[in-house]
Amino acid sequence: MTDLFGGHPETTTLSDSEVQFLDTTLRDGEQAPGVSLTPTEKAEIATKLDSAGVGVIEAGSACTGAGERETIDRVTSLGLDATVTSFARGVKRDIDLALDCDVDGVNLVVPASDRHIEDKVETTRESVIETAVELTEYATDHGLWVEVLGEDGSRADLDFLERLMRRAFEAGADRSCYCDTVGHATPDRTLSVVSRLTALGPTSTHTHDDLGLAVTNALVSVAAGADLVHATINGIGERAGNVALEEVAIALEHGYDVETIDTAALYDLAQTVAGSTDVPLAPNKAVVGENAFTHESGIHTDGTLKDEAMYEPYPPALVGRERRLVLGKHAGRAGVRAGLDEHGIDVTDEELSTIVDRVKTIGDRGRRVTDADLLTIAEEVQGRDRDRRVELLDLTAASGGPTPTASARLAVDGEERVASGVGSGPVDAAVSAVREALAIDATLESYRVDAITGGTDALVTVEVEVSHNDRSVTVTASDADITRASVVAMVDAFDRLLSATTPVPLAND
Amino acid sequence: MTDLFGGHPETTTLSDSEVQFLDTTLRDGEQAPGVSLTPTEKAEIATKLDSAGVGVIEAGSACTGAGERETIDRVTSLGLDATVTSFARGVKRDIDLALDCDVDGVNLVVPASDRHIEDKVETTRESVIETAVELTEYATDHGLWVEVLGEDGSRADLDFLERLMRRAFEAGADRSCYCDTVGHATPDRTLSVVSRLTALGPTSTHTHDDLGLAVTNALVSVAAGADLVHATINGIGERAGNVALEEVAIALEHGYDVETIDTAALYDLAQTVAGSTDVPLAPNKAVVGENAFTHESGIHTDGTLKDEAMYEPYPPALVGRERRLVLGKHAGRAGVRAGLDEHGIDVTDEELSTIVDRVKTIGDRGRRVTDADLLTIAEEVQGRDRDRRVELLDLTAASGGPTPTASARLAVDGEERVASGVGSGPVDAAVSAVREALAIDATLESYRVDAITGGTDALVTVEVEVSHNDRSVTVTASDADITRASVVAMVDAFDRLLSATTPVPLAND
Repeated sequence: MTDLFGGHPETTTLSDSEVQFLDTTLRDGEQAPGVSLTPTEKAEIATKLDSAGVGVIEAGSACTGAGERETIDRVTSLGLDATVTSFARGVKRDIDLALDCDVDGVNLVVPASDRHIEDKVETTRESVIETAVELTEYATDHGLWVEVLGEDGSRADLDFLERLMRRAFEAGADRSCYCDTVGHATPDRTLSVVSRLTALGPTSTHTHDDLGLAVTNALVSVAAGADLVHATINGIGERAGNVALEEVAIALEHGYDVETIDTAALYDLAQTVAGSTDVPLAPNKAVVGENAFTHESGIHTDGTLKDEAMYEPYPPALVGRERRLVLGKHAGRAGVRAGLDEHGIDVTDEELSTIVDRVKTIGDRGRRVTDADLLTIAEEVQGRDRDRRVELLDLTAASGGPTPTASARLAVDGEERVASGVGSGPVDAAVSAVREALAIDATLESYRVDAITGGTDALVTVEVEVSHNDRSVTVTASDADITRASVVAMVDAFDRLLSATTPVPLAND
Repeated sequence: MTDLFGGHPETTTLSDSEVQFLDTTLRDGEQAPGVSLTPTEKAEIATKLDSAGVGVIEAGSACTGAGERETIDRVTSLGLDATVTSFARGVKRDIDLALDCDVDGVNLVVPASDRHIEDKVETTRESVIETAVELTEYATDHGLWVEVLGEDGSRADLDFLERLMRRAFEAGADRSCYCDTVGHATPDRTLSVVSRLTALGPTSTHTHDDLGLAVTNALVSVAAGADLVHATINGIGERAGNVALEEVAIALEHGYDVETIDTAALYDLAQTVAGSTDVPLAPNKAVVGENAFTHESGIHTDGTLKDEAMYEPYPPALVGRERRLVLGKHAGRAGVRAGLDEHGIDVTDEELSTIVDRVKTIGDRGRRVTDADLLTIAEEVQGRDRDRRVELLDLTAASGGPTPTASARLAVDGEERVASGVGSGPVDAAVSAVREALAIDATLESYRVDAITGGTDALVTVEVEVSHNDRSVTVTASDADITRASVVAMVDAFDRLLSATTPVPLAND
């Protein structure tokens, strides 16, 4: 393709670069507030990173505590292809603790900016160099791969940083690492610092996203000769987080034809990390966010139906995903027709116009337009009377005590059915009662409640997806009572499956 | 400061740039799946954008429907300083509809890439130019400010794009806009396209974040002479979203000393937009995410207590925020001592070490360490017996029906109190019963339930913050029963306030 910035004289051609990743999800990512991974979770993530082809996995920081060492130990014992390392501060004890965990290498951090040298560690530049040299020798003597990180390097005096890293290389360090610890650097600053370091030997780059420039700074580093990019899955990490591995991988592959890892593994990795860390992904997160390949607006949906690449830079399969078309206030004819087709419903052009208007009206109210909404609208517009087969007559749930219990009274094809159930909470008990009453052979594919932040009386929105064989239906319901919202959505979804042209069989049908 | 990419010959000096924003939260942002803003919400956001100094506000797309026109109308009637515009496709009717809403200008979009010209609109390059010229003349004749957007411009033939925009300028267009519609462009591509357009006249830039390069592409555009940046608050928009206004504003101000808007308004704007659109912010979102100025790890907290700038690129007040220190598995002595100080607890060095270890242990289990956790640990370590003043003996909640009801039996200072309450759901009723029983004068500052995605039997984590005057306490509780988790957290929080050195007064105390 082309050079990064139109052939800047100091940069090399990105497309010729050989780049690997050091994944630090398990160390810097885990330093994100509130995040802690169990040994099993770290092992699962490390295994997936390894299969995807990540070269170096920083498994943790051995000095943090006994629990942390146990998890690092678990990762080192997996027998991965990747080099497994531990973070170590500039003290001998940290290297010893890392050795106890049987790591392949250490990421040895020493302060590089005067702010960190003088105000935080309360030492001098010369003493930092001495420590770096001494510990590098100690670590290499013990057979460790050593990467020396100059903390806050982007705010460091460049001459000092260069001197520090030259001495580290002389002491046997395998590589230096440029650290934009606080996400302070602009791309030009990154370019000048990294160019100085790559002249000395192999160089890594470690960037943060405080200014929204993490990906660019990683790319600029590579253009300046860095060949190992520190990154975390989903960009988790301190403050605004580290650079997101998936974004750098895709920017390199799509933008510069530089292959790094198996990008098809990215979505699964993102889901695994989001699940284990409880750090949710914004829907508009690049590459792995829920909406990254979702099209709602009429123009975009219409275009996408004509040519899949119309509104996408690269196909979703590249990162292990699928495209989604959804309906909302910006819906157009093509998108609505595609939605109706999925449910086998034919409409005239005139009916379609009316349906589109009604869909937009729901969207205008700020609501998601679900399958159930679309089907109801189509029925009304076509004057098809749908006899509901299932109706909720009554619901009672008792919770708070040791055995949450619920009963539901339903009318099924006009005949009353009552059932009760127990569960782990009021919703679980109520849903169990409904299923008992219906004895329907359907799977609850997903049950989702948006985060509740408004207070104990906030409106709760529940979305359920229920499926039978290859048919599925999505319904949402809102109520200040979470039990009621959940059951109403579930009953509507079951009713939809039962009322379809080829209904799902119901016990006693 | 310095040039964007070390003085690339084709770029100007960023620090000399005069840049304004066109905020398209209300148009492109609103095209994000599931987003729809009411007229009142749009008016509120537009007013805040205007006070912050945003130059142009794209209020919507008049062709979308009657509801949309009503909202645009509402914004144009606010009498803002900003230029208020509507999006318009390349058809005369769209401009007429925009005129009906009394806008100051239109963002006139015509296809620019062959993919869009031939496959989507099914027309020819020449016909696109004719349309652009004709509609620009029509719009300017009607007194409108006209910006011509070349859709998918980053994938367009550059000679054609240049020809199109030259003709648009000749027809009276106020400015052209470079559109990286699908977030496809690398910075070098952006540089070459925008340089060609800025040679013709005033140029805007419209970037998307599919490759994580939205901010950089906006900056590169400015370096190439663009002077109006299209952006959305929180980076909401189609797919991975548009470039985030707050990130560009801060990157320009912190990185290049270029002032644009009143950045202190950014956090409030972000919260307003997240609330109105229901598009949640990831905690690690740059500038406005919950954790962007939060420090948990020991090294970072210690450093931050010594020097606020140690682990931050710029002070949180710059964007209207405050710094937060929290505790977790990476906690260190300095952070824990700061936390204890807040609650007026003195500890010896030895006690502190034990407390730090216990805090790390909770963190190891992946749990947030709340105030209540820290206080409990301190009591245990210091051998202070805390008699719980409030205990939950029994809880019953009935929901599903029209009047959710609950009762709670509590022991308060050894004496039993029973009360019942009703509410909008089981949680609301149960909390109301507890408050009735305690008659405590405390405010529920926040009630938060993490999104539930695991199924109806998933563990639910509830976090409550309860305050009395200037004292507040945060407690979390998890249970598969949302009612029980909520009440346990609430009772613990009340107990903490009542058990403090200066207890909150209790009725009958």
